Amino acid sequence: MTLPLQFNLTGGPSGATPATLAALGRPILNHLDPAFVELYAQTAELARQAFETAGTPVIVHGEGVVGLEATAASAIGADDVVLNLVSGVFGKGYGYWARRYAREVIDLEVGYDSSVPPARVEEAFRDRPDITVVAVVHCETPSGTVNDVDAIAAITHRHDALLIVDSVSAFGGMPCRLRDWGDSLVVTAPQKCLGGPPGLSLLHVSDRAWARMEANPNAPRASILSILDWRDAHLATKPFPFTPSVTDIYGLRACLQQYLQEGPGNVHQRHRLAARATQAGAEALGLTLWAPDPATRSDTVTAVRLPDGMDERAVREHARVNSGVLVSGGHGDLSGRLLRVGHMGPSAFPLSAVLAVTAIGRALRALGAKADIGSGVEAATAALDEG
Amino acid sequence: MTLPLQFNLTGGPSGATPATLAALGRPILNHLDPAFVELYAQTAELARQAFETAGTPVIVHGEGVVGLEATAASAIGADDVVLNLVSGVFGKGYGYWARRYAREVIDLEVGYDSSVPPARVEEAFRDRPDITVVAVVHCETPSGTVNDVDAIAAITHRHDALLIVDSVSAFGGMPCRLRDWGDSLVVTAPQKCLGGPPGLSLLHVSDRAWARMEANPNAPRASILSILDWRDAHLATKPFPFTPSVTDIYGLRACLQQYLQEGPGNVHQRHRLAARATQAGAEALGLTLWAPDPATRSDTVTAVRLPDGMDERAVREHARVNSGVLVSGGHGDLSGRLLRVGHMGPSAFPLSAVLAVTAIGRALRALGAKADIGSGVEAATAALDEG
Amino acid sequence: MTLPLQFNLTGGPSGATPATLAALGRPILNHLDPAFVELYAQTAELARQAFETAGTPVIVHGEGVVGLEATAASAIGADDVVLNLVSGVFGKGYGYWARRYAREVIDLEVGYDSSVPPARVEEAFRDRPDITVVAVVHCETPSGTVNDVDAIAAITHRHDALLIVDSVSAFGGMPCRLRDWGDSLVVTAPQKCLGGPPGLSLLHVSDRAWARMEANPNAPRASILSILDWRDAHLATKPFPFTPSVTDIYGLRACLQQYLQEGPGNVHQRHRLAARATQAGAEALGLTLWAPDPATRSDTVTAVRLPDGMDERAVREHARVNSGVLVSGGHGDLSGRLLRVGHMGPSAFPLSAVLAVTAIGRALRALGAKADIGSGVEAATAALDEG
Amino acid sequence: MTLPLQFNLTGGPSGATPATLAALGRPILNHLDPAFVELYAQTAELARQAFETAGTPVIVHGEGVVGLEATAASAIGADDVVLNLVSGVFGKGYGYWARRYAREVIDLEVGYDSSVPPARVEEAFRDRPDITVVAVVHCETPSGTVNDVDAIAAITHRHDALLIVDSVSAFGGMPCRLRDWGDSLVVTAPQKCLGGPPGLSLLHVSDRAWARMEANPNAPRASILSILDWRDAHLATKPFPFTPSVTDIYGLRACLQQYLQEGPGNVHQRHRLAARATQAGAEALGLTLWAPDPATRSDTVTAVRLPDGMDERAVREHARVNSGVLVSGGHGDLSGRLLRVGHMGPSAFPLSAVLAVTAIGRALRALGAKADIGSGVEAATAALDEG
Repeated sequence: MTLPLQFNLTGGPSGATPATLAALGRPILNHLDPAFVELYAQTAELARQAFETAGTPVIVHGEGVVGLEATAASAIGADDVVLNLVSGVFGKGYGYWARRYAREVIDLEVGYDSSVPPARVEEAFRDRPDITVVAVVHCETPSGTVNDVDAIAAITHRHDALLIVDSVSAFGGMPCRLRDWGDSLVVTAPQKCLGGPPGLSLLHVSDRAWARMEANPNAPRASILSILDWRDAHLATKPFPFTPSVTDIYGLRACLQQYLQEGPGNVHQRHRLAARATQAGAEALGLTLWAPDPATRSDTVTAVRLPDGMDERAVREHARVNSGVLVSGGHGDLSGRLLRVGHMGPSAFPLSAVLAVTAIGRALRALGAKADIGSGVEAATAALDEG
Repeated sequence: MTLPLQFNLTGGPSGATPATLAALGRPILNHLDPAFVELYAQTAELARQAFETAGTPVIVHGEGVVGLEATAASAIGADDVVLNLVSGVFGKGYGYWARRYAREVIDLEVGYDSSVPPARVEEAFRDRPDITVVAVVHCETPSGTVNDVDAIAAITHRHDALLIVDSVSAFGGMPCRLRDWGDSLVVTAPQKCLGGPPGLSLLHVSDRAWARMEANPNAPRASILSILDWRDAHLATKPFPFTPSVTDIYGLRACLQQYLQEGPGNVHQRHRLAARATQAGAEALGLTLWAPDPATRSDTVTAVRLPDGMDERAVREHARVNSGVLVSGGHGDLSGRLLRVGHMGPSAFPLSAVLAVTAIGRALRALGAKADIGSGVEAATAALDEG
Repeated sequence: MTLPLQFNLTGGPSGATPATLAALGRPILNHLDPAFVELYAQTAELARQAFETAGTPVIVHGEGVVGLEATAASAIGADDVVLNLVSGVFGKGYGYWARRYAREVIDLEVGYDSSVPPARVEEAFRDRPDITVVAVVHCETPSGTVNDVDAIAAITHRHDALLIVDSVSAFGGMPCRLRDWGDSLVVTAPQKCLGGPPGLSLLHVSDRAWARMEANPNAPRASILSILDWRDAHLATKPFPFTPSVTDIYGLRACLQQYLQEGPGNVHQRHRLAARATQAGAEALGLTLWAPDPATRSDTVTAVRLPDGMDERAVREHARVNSGVLVSGGHGDLSGRLLRVGHMGPSAFPLSAVLAVTAIGRALRALGAKADIGSGVEAATAALDEG
Repeated sequence: MTLPLQFNLTGGPSGATPATLAALGRPILNHLDPAFVELYAQTAELARQAFETAGTPVIVHGEGVVGLEATAASAIGADDVVLNLVSGVFGKGYGYWARRYAREVIDLEVGYDSSVPPARVEEAFRDRPDITVVAVVHCETPSGTVNDVDAIAAITHRHDALLIVDSVSAFGGMPCRLRDWGDSLVVTAPQKCLGGPPGLSLLHVSDRAWARMEANPNAPRASILSILDWRDAHLATKPFPFTPSVTDIYGLRACLQQYLQEGPGNVHQRHRLAARATQAGAEALGLTLWAPDPATRSDTVTAVRLPDGMDERAVREHARVNSGVLVSGGHGDLSGRLLRVGHMGPSAFPLSAVLAVTAIGRALRALGAKADIGSGVEAATAALDEG
């Protein structure tokens, strides 16, 4: 059967609103057209408002992962000792980049269904007072878990180190108190909770983080990995280091406008509600949530353990073909062990949990497992009603 | 809470696919640009293929209701005796137009939750052999009921009368055997099962229907109500009587292309499945379907009786605000007595029934009624699984 | 050679801005969705602001010609004597509709390259004090001429008659003082100077015009030709008589917003400048302007006489294929006698005259005539520089 | 005055067709959605057809300059001796990257208004038989000059070296015989002659170029600068190294489809014609073309010397504000010395030269210089007529 409509309930890119799509279809201006120069400045200012910071964020012209690589290349110098917090696939991956540039990288690793206890960070500093950089993933998209960045930032700040935060799939879906995170470099991207196109990163750089990069003789220049090159790109008086991604900037601007117009508090509440409905629905359906501790579960993506013997790809394929619902599977080491339902930006709407529960339930049944769809939907709607 | 996404599960206009929306945003050509003249001809040809007729359909430049008014104005002459079949609000309404032009109009009326028995049409001809025109509504959108047009057409044909069919909300969602309906004028419109914009009508005119209109001295000319004026408008050699609705034509072309590409059989099956899932879901939720006889229920829109004492507007408002689902209420005489869930074109997708059942169920509960959402969703998915 | 870009410099539809096209591609809302009801009300209010009138304009759901037919059907009663001012093809045509409904129609006809002298209207009233309605075309699109509606309105008002104005191709490109026109019915449409889609009409109806229609027993009801039916359609408390053209309403709203944002004075100045540049350019090219009297020439479309022996279709075809410029030819009785260059809405931009002069000049040369393109472009730019 | 339309006649990004813009506004699919995986494969295959090569091109997810940086990072190893051909700003710039990775870089520099004589390349190899890589810019966008890549490729091939070609602003506007260029790495990008969005690069990699990169221990991996990572990304069986720029891929696919449908020969002819018309028009206007030798002038962008004492920014500002035409100025060392008119992709249309000549001529006059606009337009149209 041909499907006229498909619901993207994945770990992102998570789709876009009609207003964002209309922005992406705008005529492509030349980047030196004063109209574009103005629009770029507006976009940077909207990002500043969304970040609730004093300094203007930097737009890096590659998707989230490029922004993260750029932080390592620019901010981690040959003398740095990096404490890399690993509670998932992306934390593990950041160590690869950190090792490329650092004197030493210390991995602090915990189970991928848990988060890094802030006390362990404190201990690490005690053991190694020479740590100069702490890297943490805010939300581990591949497993739907979050770290307590507020607490970790406070510790890092106390020890005078730089905090590098991968907030790609958290920002825009959960509160991010960037101003309270001290000396930090925070990376997010439009294609997750903001509902924008993949292709850009958005970086918060604290004053001291700028100073560190400037002092780093190895920080890239004249490179896609240079953060310094783009520091002033939003100023009409400064040239762009190279041609910015005009269409993607249109999309970023549109989704920042919508985020601010809806109101960060409302947006976060919408994500929280979708998360709770999905969690409740999945459990009532008969599934086990990936992270045992509720505090570890993200408001932006919900991971569930795949029932024994179930083929992840077959579940996802059935949901897509028969129910028009696209969910995500595992990634890297987690491949084949879990299913993930995103509720990010446009996919964090009230009945998204109902669609996810029904589609997964139908797939499980079709593949021979039990699934209590009725109870799952009842539990999801009950969670919505609780608000 | 701000809703980022809303599901249009109404009685139509029923939304449009991204491909149709992209077509609507195309640059507006001048209507005499050879590129538009060609595109108009293609659209007419696609309509012919969709109608599976020999003659080229006529595009009337007003929404379905305008097309219907035009049939009365053009085809019902001062000598005609019209048998107007009334099984709902729209059938009743057609009598108003018929009386404007006919010598006499005979209303054959049945309860609005039933359909006109073909035997009653046969009887009517026996009583009044001077009947020259029969008017019938294929699908009564306001109550989700269908008439047996095949049988009625056969009788009408046998008695050498003209059949006028309002197939606005049936064509594109259910089989319509236009070629078998004899001397007929059939009206449909893009905004229902085709998923296009409101603003146009699409008319099948049989050869004898053309002859009747040409012979009617009162048939409008130089008028929006003229069907004759537009007979040859699809030919590059003929001028348009007035400026066609360029953007709407783009949309019509796009949705006809999609209809033909998906395949009429697949499209009809998709509507049937959505209808069955909605009917089963609504009953399991605890509601009573409007039409007692399953054969009377449309594949394109499902009507349910409003529980006693329930405020229709309040139900719909709750579903819209809290669940992001828009359903329809009653219309005209039926106002306040029923709820309607459309499954037309883009809204006839597998889980549309699940969304409708959940949203209506939540609203009923919030307003103090009982609603078994879990059972409703289970019944809807069971209907889908039966295929 | 394939043309990647084509300039629509016709007599309309005249294209649309990217912002209008983006609006046309918006998701199609159900017309009873509160979001659409609100948007419709906004559109009517924007039209009121553009009209600078106290009463809310009526949107008729058919293109300009339908709006005009509706004025005749609704406002011309069986007792009316209509003075129909004819200075072109459209004025002549209006008489056809007027005769359908009036007791008597008096045509006051002048050459199609001139305008109706107001003194002749005064004389007509002297001869026939029983005239109750005056019909006038503001801008005759087929010949690029204008009538002095201000003066004619004053006379009509003094004689207590109703003025019906076809301002389809004038409004939005030239000052229209609707408030000063007394008892009047004024019709315009989005596809000319507003740069919107064809498919709607916009009507100003004065209080006395409403009273006349209400008093007319033949005024249509339950019809596409009914103006009365739609009087209150912009009020949230009133139902739409039938489904409005949702997509076209999006387009109308977008172009009214742009018109008001640019500012009527700026818009009119832009059209005037484009007209002067085109007129000067055409004359320097070696062509003769259609209307000898400059006061008769429209700011929205420029007509030139076709040089003797020149094939109009061949000229237009050459301009389109070789220069990517689409211009219009003659219409009706004027067919083959003139060429027309539109400068309406999006096509009234500074260098539009340069494109038109170059394209027509190249075509004339290719077909064996003389054309001084260099002088034509110089004259056009000189006119622009004069401002 | 408000400008409703603006002509982008810059050195790129050069705008996009409506079809490309519609593609950019498509719903953002998740990159792991089978529908996107398929679409990505199609895009790569379309690129292969456009390149007329056997191997599938690589899409790098950063704009042209990122693709060029990636070639240096991936293909220039610590043992390489690079002959860097410098005939303009971009050639000069490539040396910066080459030095970052090479053992030695030899700049062969000529005047920026000329091209590198192939004989000088031959000499360079004679002097330094240890040259392993030759880098050449096909079209120097900042000065509108081209190098004879065919001849340089033949020499490079004979000496068994790798050729790195910056064809960013040449490919799609001029013939590029990639298959004849031997061991080579060729970079282009969508935003110039293809009329796509900036944000991607398209790379041709010959078999031996792949082998070189694989043998280079310093070639980046897990990096935006890695070409190797993306080698097989178009295969459904291989994961994407990171999230591709979904929207930009839509745009790339659309413009490759249009390029192939129009036909490379037709596209090149369209650019050549626009270039000749612009060159002839500019000279007749009274300007001096930047490159004295016609063979050095690009078909994709025309540079003219700025008359003495003229303020480049003032000229461009006048053209933009008063004529709605955006042209480019100088870049880097060439700043303030020249003006550039792009005729790339959508801006290479017949009358683009007329618009450019008129707009620049008006600006020069307004700023006190002489400019013969009439002669300029005549010369431009004469060049068009010559074909």
